[in-house]
Amino acid sequence: MAHISLPAGLPGISGPLNQYPETALHLRGLAQALLRGPSSLTPGEREMIATYVSSQNNCWFCTNSHRAATRYLLVEEETPAELVDQVCQDLETAPVNDKIRALLMIAGQVQQGGRRVSEENVAKARLAGADDKAIHDTVLIAAAFCMFNHYVDGLATWAPEKESDYEEQGALLAQHGYVTPTTG
Amino acid sequence: MAHISLPAGLPGISGPLNQYPETALHLRGLAQALLRGPSSLTPGEREMIATYVSSQNNCWFCTNSHRAATRYLLVEEETPAELVDQVCQDLETAPVNDKIRALLMIAGQVQQGGRRVSEENVAKARLAGADDKAIHDTVLIAAAFCMFNHYVDGLATWAPEKESDYEEQGALLAQHGYVTPTTG
Repeated sequence: MAHISLPAGLPGISGPLNQYPETALHLRGLAQALLRGPSSLTPGEREMIATYVSSQNNCWFCTNSHRAATRYLLVEEETPAELVDQVCQDLETAPVNDKIRALLMIAGQVQQGGRRVSEENVAKARLAGADDKAIHDTVLIAAAFCMFNHYVDGLATWAPEKESDYEEQGALLAQHGYVTPTTG
Repeated sequence: MAHISLPAGLPGISGPLNQYPETALHLRGLAQALLRGPSSLTPGEREMIATYVSSQNNCWFCTNSHRAATRYLLVEEETPAELVDQVCQDLETAPVNDKIRALLMIAGQVQQGGRRVSEENVAKARLAGADDKAIHDTVLIAAAFCMFNHYVDGLATWAPEKESDYEEQGALLAQHGYVTPTTG
Protein backbone atom coordinates (compact mmCIF):
# COMPACT_ATOMS: atom_id res chain seq x y z
CA MET A 1 0.00 0.00 0.00
CA ALA A 2 1.21 3.50 -0.81
CA HIS A 3 2.42 5.71 2.07
CA ILE A 4 -0.24 8.36 1.31
CA SER A 5 -3.78 8.25 -0.03
CA LEU A 6 -3.75 8.09 -3.86
CA PRO A 7 -6.48 7.51 -6.50
CA ALA A 8 -7.16 3.78 -6.94
CA GLY A 9 -6.00 1.92 -10.06
CA LEU A 10 -3.42 4.45 -11.30
CA PRO A 11 0.02 2.80 -11.54
CA GLY A 12 3.36 4.28 -10.48
CA ILE A 13 3.79 8.01 -10.90
CA SER A 14 0.27 8.45 -12.34
CA GLY A 15 -1.25 8.38 -8.83
CA PRO A 16 0.78 11.25 -7.31
CA LEU A 17 0.66 13.23 -10.59
CA ASN A 18 -3.14 13.01 -10.49
CA GLN A 19 -3.41 13.80 -6.77
CA TYR A 20 -0.93 16.73 -6.75
CA PRO A 21 -1.49 18.71 -9.98
CA GLU A 22 0.53 21.82 -8.93
CA THR A 23 3.80 19.90 -9.07
CA ALA A 24 2.61 17.49 -11.80
CA LEU A 25 2.41 20.36 -14.28
CA HIS A 26 6.15 20.98 -14.02
CA LEU A 27 7.14 17.32 -13.76
CA ARG A 28 5.28 16.56 -17.01
CA GLY A 29 6.69 19.68 -18.68
CA LEU A 30 10.23 18.71 -17.72
CA ALA A 31 9.83 15.14 -19.05
CA GLN A 32 8.40 16.46 -22.31
CA ALA A 33 11.16 19.07 -22.86
CA LEU A 34 13.90 16.65 -21.90
CA LEU A 35 12.74 13.49 -23.71
CA ARG A 36 10.89 14.95 -26.72
CA GLY A 37 12.17 18.55 -27.16
CA PRO A 38 14.99 19.61 -29.51
CA SER A 39 18.21 17.65 -28.85
CA SER A 40 21.12 16.11 -30.72
CA LEU A 41 19.91 12.76 -29.30
CA THR A 42 16.87 10.95 -30.71
CA PRO A 43 13.80 10.33 -28.50
CA GLY A 44 14.67 6.61 -28.52
CA GLU A 45 18.22 7.31 -27.33
CA ARG A 46 16.94 9.60 -24.58
CA GLU A 47 14.30 7.10 -23.43
CA MET A 48 17.06 4.45 -23.35
CA ILE A 49 19.11 6.64 -20.97
CA ALA A 50 15.99 7.11 -18.80
CA THR A 51 15.41 3.34 -18.76
CA TYR A 52 19.02 2.54 -17.93
CA VAL A 53 19.09 4.97 -14.97
CA SER A 54 15.72 3.65 -13.72
CA SER A 55 17.07 0.09 -13.84
CA GLN A 56 20.20 1.16 -11.92
CA ASN A 57 17.87 2.67 -9.30
CA ASN A 58 15.84 -0.58 -9.24
CA CYS A 59 12.62 1.31 -9.95
CA TRP A 60 10.29 -1.36 -11.38
CA PHE A 61 7.57 0.99 -12.63
CA CYS A 62 9.87 3.49 -14.37
CA THR A 63 12.15 0.81 -15.83
CA ASN A 64 9.26 -1.08 -17.39
CA SER A 65 7.25 1.87 -18.65
CA HIS A 66 10.28 3.61 -20.19
CA ARG A 67 11.65 0.32 -21.55
CA ALA A 68 8.34 -0.18 -23.37
CA ALA A 69 8.47 3.40 -24.71
CA THR A 70 12.11 2.93 -25.78
CA ARG A 71 11.37 -0.32 -27.63
CA TYR A 72 8.56 1.39 -29.55
CA LEU A 73 10.73 4.39 -30.47
CA LEU A 74 13.82 2.36 -31.41
CA VAL A 75 11.76 0.44 -33.98
CA GLU A 76 10.52 3.75 -35.42
CA GLU A 77 14.18 4.85 -35.57
CA GLU A 78 15.06 1.62 -37.45
CA THR A 79 17.14 0.27 -34.58
CA PRO A 80 16.59 -3.15 -32.92
CA ALA A 81 14.13 -2.85 -30.00
CA GLU A 82 16.12 -5.29 -27.84
CA LEU A 83 19.07 -2.85 -27.55
CA VAL A 84 17.48 -1.35 -24.45
CA ASP A 85 17.24 -4.77 -22.79
CA GLN A 86 20.87 -5.54 -23.66
CA VAL A 87 21.97 -2.16 -22.23
CA CYS A 88 20.17 -2.84 -18.93
CA GLN A 89 21.58 -6.37 -18.74
CA ASP A 90 25.23 -5.46 -19.47
CA LEU A 91 26.29 -2.06 -20.76
CA GLU A 92 29.86 -3.22 -21.52
CA THR A 93 28.78 -5.85 -24.07
CA ALA A 94 25.55 -4.32 -25.44
CA PRO A 95 25.91 -3.63 -29.21
CA VAL A 96 25.35 0.15 -29.01
CA ASN A 97 27.55 2.67 -30.81
CA ASP A 98 30.49 4.32 -29.02
CA LYS A 99 28.67 7.63 -28.49
CA ILE A 100 25.68 6.04 -26.77
CA ARG A 101 27.87 3.74 -24.67
CA ALA A 102 29.94 6.72 -23.47
CA LEU A 103 26.79 8.73 -22.68
CA LEU A 104 25.23 5.79 -20.81
CA MET A 105 28.46 5.52 -18.78
CA ILE A 106 28.07 9.20 -17.87
CA ALA A 107 24.41 8.61 -16.94
CA GLY A 108 25.47 5.71 -14.71
CA GLN A 109 28.03 7.93 -12.97
CA VAL A 110 25.43 10.66 -12.38
CA GLN A 111 23.09 8.04 -10.87
CA GLN A 112 25.79 7.20 -8.31
CA GLY A 113 26.53 10.86 -7.55
CA GLY A 114 27.25 13.85 -9.78
CA ARG A 115 30.92 14.26 -8.82
CA ARG A 116 31.72 10.81 -10.23
CA VAL A 117 31.54 12.05 -13.83
CA SER A 118 35.21 12.34 -14.84
CA GLU A 119 36.88 14.43 -17.54
CA GLU A 120 37.84 11.10 -19.12
CA ASN A 121 34.15 10.06 -19.30
CA VAL A 122 33.32 13.32 -21.05
CA ALA A 123 36.35 13.19 -23.39
CA LYS A 124 35.35 9.69 -24.51
CA ALA A 125 31.82 10.87 -25.32
CA ARG A 126 33.13 13.88 -27.28
CA LEU A 127 35.59 11.75 -29.23
CA ALA A 128 32.65 9.54 -30.28
CA GLY A 129 30.69 12.57 -31.52
CA ALA A 130 28.69 13.83 -28.52
CA ASP A 131 28.21 17.61 -28.45
CA ASP A 132 27.51 19.88 -25.46
CA LYS A 133 23.75 19.45 -25.82
CA ALA A 134 24.03 15.64 -25.80
CA ILE A 135 26.20 15.74 -22.66
CA HIS A 136 23.86 18.23 -20.98
CA ASP A 137 20.76 16.23 -21.83
CA THR A 138 22.36 12.97 -20.65
CA VAL A 139 23.30 14.47 -17.27
CA LEU A 140 19.88 16.06 -16.79
CA ILE A 141 17.97 12.94 -17.89
CA ALA A 142 20.01 10.86 -15.42
CA ALA A 143 19.47 13.43 -12.64
CA ALA A 144 15.75 13.78 -13.42
CA PHE A 145 15.20 10.03 -13.38
CA CYS A 146 16.82 9.85 -9.95
CA MET A 147 13.98 12.24 -9.00
CA PHE A 148 11.21 10.33 -10.78
CA ASN A 149 12.46 6.97 -9.47
CA HIS A 150 12.76 8.19 -5.86
CA TYR A 151 9.34 9.89 -6.06
CA VAL A 152 7.62 6.72 -7.30
CA ASP A 153 9.36 4.42 -4.81
CA GLY A 154 9.55 6.87 -1.88
CA LEU A 155 5.74 6.95 -1.82
CA ALA A 156 5.56 3.14 -2.28
CA THR A 157 3.18 3.50 -5.24
CA TRP A 158 1.47 0.47 -6.75
CA ALA A 159 2.84 -0.94 -10.04
CA PRO A 160 1.78 -3.84 -12.31
CA GLU A 161 4.01 -6.89 -11.86
CA LYS A 162 4.11 -8.26 -15.41
CA GLU A 163 6.38 -6.63 -17.99
CA SER A 164 3.72 -7.17 -20.67
CA ASP A 165 1.35 -4.91 -18.72
CA TYR A 166 3.54 -1.93 -19.68
CA GLU A 167 3.38 -2.31 -23.46
CA GLU A 168 0.23 -0.28 -24.01
CA GLN A 169 1.35 2.58 -21.76
CA GLY A 170 4.82 2.55 -23.33
CA ALA A 171 3.29 2.93 -26.80
CA LEU A 172 1.17 5.87 -25.55
CA LEU A 173 4.26 7.58 -24.05
CA ALA A 174 6.16 6.98 -27.30
CA GLN A 175 3.36 8.37 -29.48
CA HIS A 176 1.96 11.20 -27.35
CA GLY A 177 4.69 12.16 -24.87
CA TYR A 178 4.15 13.53 -21.38
CA VAL A 179 1.99 16.61 -21.53
CA THR A 180 -1.54 15.19 -21.61
CA PRO A 181 -2.95 14.02 -18.26
CA THR A 182 -4.06 10.65 -19.68
CA THR A 183 -0.58 9.36 -20.51
CA GLY A 184 0.87 9.17 -16.98
CA MET B 1 36.15 23.67 -15.31
CA ALA B 2 32.63 22.62 -16.20
CA HIS B 3 32.17 19.64 -18.53
CA ILE B 4 30.28 21.78 -21.08
CA SER B 5 30.48 25.41 -22.18
CA LEU B 6 28.51 27.64 -19.76
CA PRO B 7 28.19 31.43 -19.36
CA ALA B 8 31.07 32.83 -17.29
CA GLY B 9 30.54 33.97 -13.71
CA LEU B 10 27.22 32.27 -13.03
CA PRO B 11 27.57 29.93 -10.02
CA GLY B 12 26.15 26.42 -9.65
CA ILE B 13 22.83 25.73 -11.34
CA SER B 14 22.55 29.31 -12.69
CA GLY B 15 24.92 28.48 -15.58
CA PRO B 16 22.97 25.53 -17.04
CA LEU B 17 19.63 27.23 -16.31
CA ASN B 18 20.77 30.22 -18.31
CA GLN B 19 22.25 28.15 -21.15
CA TYR B 20 19.32 25.71 -21.50
CA PRO B 21 16.10 27.71 -21.04
CA GLU B 22 13.70 25.01 -22.36
CA THR B 23 14.35 22.78 -19.37
CA ALA B 24 15.06 25.70 -16.98
CA LEU B 25 11.45 26.85 -17.29
CA HIS B 26 10.19 23.61 -15.74
CA LEU B 27 13.02 23.26 -13.20
CA ARG B 28 12.28 26.75 -11.86
CA GLY B 29 8.53 26.11 -11.89
CA LEU B 30 8.98 22.88 -9.96
CA ALA B 31 11.18 24.53 -7.31
CA GLN B 32 8.68 27.36 -6.91
CA ALA B 33 5.61 25.08 -6.57
CA LEU B 34 7.41 22.71 -4.23
CA LEU B 35 9.21 25.18 -1.94
CA ARG B 36 6.85 28.19 -2.03
CA GLY B 37 3.42 26.87 -3.14
CA PRO B 38 0.58 25.80 -0.81
CA SER B 39 1.73 23.15 1.73
CA SER B 40 1.22 22.16 5.35
CA LEU B 41 4.96 22.85 5.78
CA THR B 42 6.38 26.38 5.98
CA PRO B 43 8.85 27.62 3.33
CA GLY B 44 11.58 27.53 6.01
CA GLU B 45 10.81 23.88 6.84
CA ARG B 46 10.81 22.96 3.15
CA GLU B 47 14.09 24.78 2.47
CA MET B 48 15.57 22.95 5.49
CA ILE B 49 14.63 19.59 3.91
CA ALA B 50 16.22 20.74 0.62
CA THR B 51 19.40 21.78 2.47
CA TYR B 52 19.61 18.53 4.44
CA VAL B 53 19.28 16.38 1.28
CA SER B 54 21.85 18.54 -0.56
CA SER B 55 24.29 18.10 2.34
CA GLN B 56 23.73 14.31 2.30
CA ASN B 57 24.54 14.41 -1.44
CA ASN B 58 27.67 16.50 -0.69
CA CYS B 59 26.57 19.19 -3.15
CA TRP B 60 28.45 22.29 -2.03
CA PHE B 61 26.56 24.83 -4.15
CA CYS B 62 23.05 23.61 -3.30
CA THR B 63 23.83 23.06 0.39
CA ASN B 64 25.17 26.58 0.81
CA SER B 65 22.60 28.44 -1.24
CA HIS B 66 19.64 26.66 0.33
CA ARG B 67 21.18 26.87 3.81
CA ALA B 68 21.38 30.65 3.38
CA ALA B 69 17.76 30.77 2.17
CA THR B 70 16.66 28.55 5.09
CA ARG B 71 18.41 30.74 7.67
CA TYR B 72 16.67 33.83 6.27
CA LEU B 73 13.24 32.15 6.27
CA LEU B 74 13.59 30.56 9.73
CA VAL B 75 14.21 33.98 11.25
CA GLU B 76 11.08 35.29 9.50
CA GLU B 77 9.22 32.29 10.96
CA GLU B 78 10.54 33.19 14.44
CA THR B 79 12.70 30.07 14.65
CA PRO B 80 16.47 30.08 15.35
CA ALA B 81 18.45 30.31 12.07
CA GLU B 82 21.09 27.84 13.31
CA LEU B 83 18.58 24.95 13.35
CA VAL B 84 19.49 24.17 9.72
CA ASP B 85 23.19 23.94 10.61
CA GLN B 86 22.44 21.66 13.57
CA VAL B 87 20.26 19.44 11.35
CA CYS B 88 23.07 19.05 8.79
CA GLN B 89 25.64 18.38 11.53
CA ASP B 90 23.63 15.75 13.44
CA LEU B 91 19.94 15.12 12.80
CA GLU B 92 19.57 12.89 15.90
CA THR B 93 20.52 15.63 18.36
CA ALA B 94 19.34 18.78 16.51
CA PRO B 95 16.64 20.58 18.56
CA VAL B 96 13.86 20.31 15.92
CA ASN B 97 10.32 19.20 16.75
CA ASP B 98 9.27 15.56 16.34
CA LYS B 99 7.37 16.18 13.10
CA ILE B 100 10.30 17.81 11.34
CA ARG B 101 12.76 15.22 12.64
CA ALA B 102 10.55 12.39 11.33
CA LEU B 103 10.16 14.13 7.94
CA LEU B 104 13.91 14.74 7.69
CA MET B 105 14.44 11.03 8.41
CA ILE B 106 12.11 10.24 5.49
CA ALA B 107 14.00 12.71 3.27
CA GLY B 108 17.28 11.02 4.23
CA GLN B 109 15.83 7.62 3.29
CA VAL B 110 14.62 8.92 -0.08
CA GLN B 111 18.11 10.32 -0.75
CA GLN B 112 19.52 6.81 -0.30
CA GLY B 113 16.83 5.19 -2.49
CA GLY B 114 13.06 5.45 -2.50
CA ARG B 115 12.36 1.90 -1.28
CA ARG B 116 14.13 2.63 2.01
CA VAL B 117 11.21 4.68 3.35
CA SER B 118 9.51 2.28 5.79
CA GLU B 119 5.95 2.19 7.11
CA GLU B 120 7.49 2.87 10.53
CA ASN B 121 9.14 6.07 9.21
CA VAL B 122 5.79 7.25 7.89
CA ALA B 123 3.86 6.20 11.02
CA LYS B 124 6.27 8.21 13.19
CA ALA B 125 5.75 11.32 11.05
CA ARG B 126 1.95 10.94 11.17
CA LEU B 127 1.97 10.45 14.95
CA ALA B 128 3.89 13.73 15.24
CA GLY B 129 1.26 15.57 13.14
CA ALA B 130 2.41 15.20 9.51
CA ASP B 131 -0.47 14.95 7.01
CA ASP B 132 -0.46 13.41 3.51
CA LYS B 133 0.60 16.70 1.92
CA ALA B 134 3.60 17.06 4.28
CA ILE B 135 4.70 13.48 3.54
CA HIS B 136 4.21 13.98 -0.22
CA ASP B 137 6.11 17.25 -0.24
CA THR B 138 8.96 15.81 1.83
CA VAL B 139 9.39 12.86 -0.55
CA LEU B 140 9.24 15.06 -3.65
CA ILE B 141 11.59 17.72 -2.22
CA ALA B 142 14.11 14.98 -1.36
CA ALA B 143 13.72 13.39 -4.81
CA ALA B 144 13.91 16.76 -6.61
CA PHE B 145 17.08 17.76 -4.76
CA CYS B 146 18.71 14.50 -5.81
CA MET B 147 18.02 15.82 -9.32
CA PHE B 148 19.24 19.39 -8.69
CA ASN B 149 22.35 18.16 -6.82
CA HIS B 150 23.28 15.61 -9.52
CA TYR B 151 22.65 18.19 -12.28
CA VAL B 152 24.92 20.78 -10.64
CA ASP B 153 27.71 18.30 -9.84
CA GLY B 154 27.31 16.06 -12.91
CA LEU B 155 28.20 19.06 -15.09
CA ALA B 156 31.05 20.06 -12.71
CA THR B 157 29.71 23.63 -12.44
CA TRP B 158 31.71 26.34 -10.72
CA ALA B 159 30.67 27.40 -7.18
CA PRO B 160 32.01 30.01 -4.73
CA GLU B 161 34.14 28.45 -1.99
CA LYS B 162 33.25 30.67 0.99
CA GLU B 163 29.97 30.08 2.83
CA SER B 164 29.57 33.84 3.27
CA ASP B 165 29.42 34.25 -0.52
CA TYR B 166 25.99 32.60 -0.47
CA GLU B 167 24.24 35.00 1.93
CA GLU B 168 23.09 37.49 -0.67
CA GLN B 169 21.77 34.84 -3.06
CA GLY B 170 20.09 33.01 -0.18
CA ALA B 171 18.25 36.18 0.82
CA LEU B 172 17.11 36.67 -2.80
CA LEU B 173 15.82 33.08 -2.99
CA ALA B 174 14.05 33.54 0.35
CA GLN B 175 12.41 36.81 -0.70
CA HIS B 176 11.66 36.25 -4.38
CA GLY B 177 11.60 32.47 -4.93
CA TYR B 178 12.55 30.67 -8.10
CA VAL B 179 10.54 32.00 -11.01
CA THR B 180 12.53 35.06 -12.09
CA PRO B 181 15.65 34.42 -14.17
CA THR B 182 17.82 36.64 -11.96
CA THR B 183 17.48 34.57 -8.79
CA GLY B 184 19.22 31.38 -9.97
